[in-house]
Amino acid sequence: MMLLGVDCGGTNLKIALVKESGEMVQSALEPINFKRPAGRVVSDIASRIKSFKDRHGAIGARNVGMGIAGDVDSAKGIVRFSPNLGWKNVPLKKLLARDLNASVAIENDANCAAWGAYCLDAKKDCENLICLTLGTGVGGGIIIGRKLYRGSTGSAGEIGHLTVKYDGRLCGCGSYGCLESRVGAWGMIQTAKEGIAQGRSPMLKILLRETGAKLSPRLIEQAARKNDPFSKKIWQDAGVCLGAALASLVNILNPDRIVLCGGVSKAGDLILKPALRTLKERAFAVPVQKVKVTVSKYDEKLGVVGAALLSRE
Amino acid sequence: MMLLGVDCGGTNLKIALVKESGEMVQSALEPINFKRPAGRVVSDIASRIKSFKDRHGAIGARNVGMGIAGDVDSAKGIVRFSPNLGWKNVPLKKLLARDLNASVAIENDANCAAWGAYCLDAKKDCENLICLTLGTGVGGGIIIGRKLYRGSTGSAGEIGHLTVKYDGRLCGCGSYGCLESRVGAWGMIQTAKEGIAQGRSPMLKILLRETGAKLSPRLIEQAARKNDPFSKKIWQDAGVCLGAALASLVNILNPDRIVLCGGVSKAGDLILKPALRTLKERAFAVPVQKVKVTVSKYDEKLGVVGAALLSRE
Repeated sequence: MMLLGVDCGGTNLKIALVKESGEMVQSALEPINFKRPAGRVVSDIASRIKSFKDRHGAIGARNVGMGIAGDVDSAKGIVRFSPNLGWKNVPLKKLLARDLNASVAIENDANCAAWGAYCLDAKKDCENLICLTLGTGVGGGIIIGRKLYRGSTGSAGEIGHLTVKYDGRLCGCGSYGCLESRVGAWGMIQTAKEGIAQGRSPMLKILLRETGAKLSPRLIEQAARKNDPFSKKIWQDAGVCLGAALASLVNILNPDRIVLCGGVSKAGDLILKPALRTLKERAFAVPVQKVKVTVSKYDEKLGVVGAALLSRE
Repeated sequence: MMLLGVDCGGTNLKIALVKESGEMVQSALEPINFKRPAGRVVSDIASRIKSFKDRHGAIGARNVGMGIAGDVDSAKGIVRFSPNLGWKNVPLKKLLARDLNASVAIENDANCAAWGAYCLDAKKDCENLICLTLGTGVGGGIIIGRKLYRGSTGSAGEIGHLTVKYDGRLCGCGSYGCLESRVGAWGMIQTAKEGIAQGRSPMLKILLRETGAKLSPRLIEQAARKNDPFSKKIWQDAGVCLGAALASLVNILNPDRIVLCGGVSKAGDLILKPALRTLKERAFAVPVQKVKVTVSKYDEKLGVVGAALLSRE
């Protein structure tokens, strides 16, 4: 049976045709304008899914799973709140199911990625898994007993908003010192901006001018690879914060696996070395010996594949 | 059917006869000398349980549940490590089952308390619960889907070792800025000691001299109730740290219930007010609206009753 996975980002729609094994057969990335009333956006999404099905001879695919950034009530099929899409209480499942004449499941996008990571990276030997998506923000999803753990209102897994420093930086969520505020792209950019303003990184300043690029984890990585002490310290600090959060997760949830994905995880040793060292130094011996931490090689796929596979759960 | 619950603390043995409903029928508290070889201590425990059964006409009680502070492998029935008892890899379940001719279950003591809290405080309307034991240290236990969640090596639930400040105070576990280092009795005493050494609390100094008592959360509470600004600030800070940890737990695990127990939770508003305010300010709206935070009225009983009831799971 073929399944359809859809990842509904802030600017793009990713659609994929996925086998039940998790293998992605076809995919497309389509720009979409979310700055219209939700009803019209949903109709647009439905017609793009239909035309994708037509193009790829997948008329029979009647299970659609969709991931959305935000607070999703998957049981009721409602997007309670999505700041990225500007949606509030949109009955997405009902609307889409009607337009597509299909069985539709909707889910938070980081939960979809976690399910994808579980199915693609870990299913064989894993009961409990945590997935962290290190992007602009930090998302998370938790698999417990081989099932996606949603919590009591479907809100579980917001690992980006685990406090790592209770008197730390104000986070976009209104809390202070969240993991995201140190390890999310926006948090790292903020740290870099503060440093540049204080004249602590001439190299970042030069790189910004020379490349004309915007400040990004990528640029901070370039500066760090050129031995800029301040940029190296940003990665080091981000790694220690990530490691402290991983230690908290290991002490509390004692998972078999932690899978990292998303842009920031691609900086490799710059962030992983301090993170893994900190995790090992800080977490309890027995559970830290058990847990395997990896960067997913499927990355880009995890969200759509996970969404597609969740449509069958 | 009658069950036996045993709580194996560092100096005392608590034994209780418990109905399957969770009602405690009889209990006893017996001092015990743990400074002997583990085998002899276990024989002693067994004979005390036997004599308790004899005294209370509970010869038929063949299910024994025992809670132990430390790292317990409940599946294999082994106490991997208990710093309090000085035990390492003690096959407690096998030894006790032989001596008692009974069906024995062993479990981490904070997990027992969590199971007790779930059964006594919350069973009716609760799927997912977190229990925090605020004592000398901070213990924790997690109920997910109406079952005790043990994680992949039985080590889950170490909520006292959730980081609240990654660059904070060194904790007994080797990590930094653990919840326990701010909210556990030892953490609060440490904060008070530092303050007294800096001359920041003349009142604590006077109270210590006048009462001849040792420094304790109780004494810091007395000083705070007499309006000592430094002692009030200790409770305020402990409350904010606890609230930040609760917010992390709500964002990650989205439970229906959080139950607090243990000595420090008895300080009431002094710690609860800042903790609940911080939780509400910091956690996501939907899950924080759902979660109910209470101080257990069963407190002392939770461990033994939970242990007894776990013997039937």
